[in-house]
Amino acid sequence: MNIGSFLHRDQALYGVFNGETVAPASPSLIAQYPTLRDLLDAEKSEALKDSANLSATIPIAEITFQPPIPNPRKIICVGMNYPKPYPVDGVAPPSPEHIILFGKESETLVGHGATLEAPRGTPADSFDYEGEIAVVIGKPARHVTAAQAMDHVLGYAPFNDGSVRDWQKHSIYAGKNFANSGSWGPWVTTADALPRVEDLHLTVTLNGDMMQSAYGREMIFSLPEQIAYASSLFTLHPGDVIATGSPDGTGGSRTPKRFLKPNDLLAVTVQGAGTLSNPVS
Amino acid sequence: MNIGSFLHRDQALYGVFNGETVAPASPSLIAQYPTLRDLLDAEKSEALKDSANLSATIPIAEITFQPPIPNPRKIICVGMNYPKPYPVDGVAPPSPEHIILFGKESETLVGHGATLEAPRGTPADSFDYEGEIAVVIGKPARHVTAAQAMDHVLGYAPFNDGSVRDWQKHSIYAGKNFANSGSWGPWVTTADALPRVEDLHLTVTLNGDMMQSAYGREMIFSLPEQIAYASSLFTLHPGDVIATGSPDGTGGSRTPKRFLKPNDLLAVTVQGAGTLSNPVS
Repeated sequence: MNIGSFLHRDQALYGVFNGETVAPASPSLIAQYPTLRDLLDAEKSEALKDSANLSATIPIAEITFQPPIPNPRKIICVGMNYPKPYPVDGVAPPSPEHIILFGKESETLVGHGATLEAPRGTPADSFDYEGEIAVVIGKPARHVTAAQAMDHVLGYAPFNDGSVRDWQKHSIYAGKNFANSGSWGPWVTTADALPRVEDLHLTVTLNGDMMQSAYGREMIFSLPEQIAYASSLFTLHPGDVIATGSPDGTGGSRTPKRFLKPNDLLAVTVQGAGTLSNPVS
Repeated sequence: MNIGSFLHRDQALYGVFNGETVAPASPSLIAQYPTLRDLLDAEKSEALKDSANLSATIPIAEITFQPPIPNPRKIICVGMNYPKPYPVDGVAPPSPEHIILFGKESETLVGHGATLEAPRGTPADSFDYEGEIAVVIGKPARHVTAAQAMDHVLGYAPFNDGSVRDWQKHSIYAGKNFANSGSWGPWVTTADALPRVEDLHLTVTLNGDMMQSAYGREMIFSLPEQIAYASSLFTLHPGDVIATGSPDGTGGSRTPKRFLKPNDLLAVTVQGAGTLSNPVS
């Protein structure tokens, strides 16, 4: 099942995507759970499998995609989680001994089809993409073990951890938190409809050229380890997002470097979970 | 004016604090603006100056303090912003060339009087306090200059940037984001009731012993510079919090080191804006 959020005639809705159409949650379901996060909080996402809870389908061409969950409590990103993702001056840093986390504010992410904003006043050779597999939490997780972790996963989505490299030298927070610099979606595909995370195939193209390609199994710290680690800090709530790290092939890691330019088209695909595509302003 | 949020008989309220009492916002104001953040979003905090918008006062002894704004969109923290705050192995790092930011999730902060949670399974010599002056945004700020920045400030509050030193070695996000490890409050004192930020006096005591003492003018990057810098990343929204950095004297910077222990009582005071005190579990 593919579930996500969108605007239709100025109304904020959520629903089930199927090919070129989406079936919105019914008015009565939306009255009870105004946002998809509210539905997930109540652990009622199964309600969307019942056609009695859905309205008549709408063509995707008539909607504006929002991030699948527009208002998550937390967006937690994992850094340096694939071999050699960020060679610096030609030298790859050693693999981290511990999971590296940083946070992203929700207003820094747009939905499928929306324009990525190049930060104002920033050198042209600094705005970069990072394709990732995002995981959405379905059940609260606190102090869970890696063995328990996957029971708390709702599903997966393509994610672009937009990064401004020269500001990242100030702090990882600054470089990763420019408004509308990243994206995720188009929807969340529930885990029951996908292979296990190790077999998910992530690919990123820029104007059709392949830039990144990796499988989930290449992560240095596995998804169960990431969930267990994060759950030792705080409760992972339904709708919280973990962006699991970016493989090699980002613009800044290439020779020659290839940063995002106006009118570029970035596409991040998680095979089976859809393609997130965004033009660059 | 001192404004903040609290629980009274299981009801989430906000209102105006005055000595040992608080006057809650009236039911009609709360119906229109359910949370203090909603009131700030509408730029209607002045409504709390009109007694027609307030209910009968309640003794502070009968309430449970929440963080002054329990649900801010962003809590942005400034690192290394006073001379020599974090000597590492006896050597002070150089002053940063740029403002250093990191993010804190709202669920990592409790209100005045609530217990600070020592992280489970963490070495006893790792849970630390950092007293700071917090600033609350009153008007949206995007791409503002330092000269314009102070027009966007609502007020100030004491803040404890609870920090778990051994996890900070993994990532600043991990060390700074344990659930209920930090605090702020008891309320926000509006800027019109206080000296300018340079003259605000921050003090921190642990079980009555003075641990930190500094004035706002000692910050390496001034508050107007911080607001201007952050507003170049994204919009600072009403209710957003900036924790402006911690002066020397944290537990980990002392000789001998003095980390938080069960039954400690931490108190952070911003002169004129009140005292935030929290026991340690």
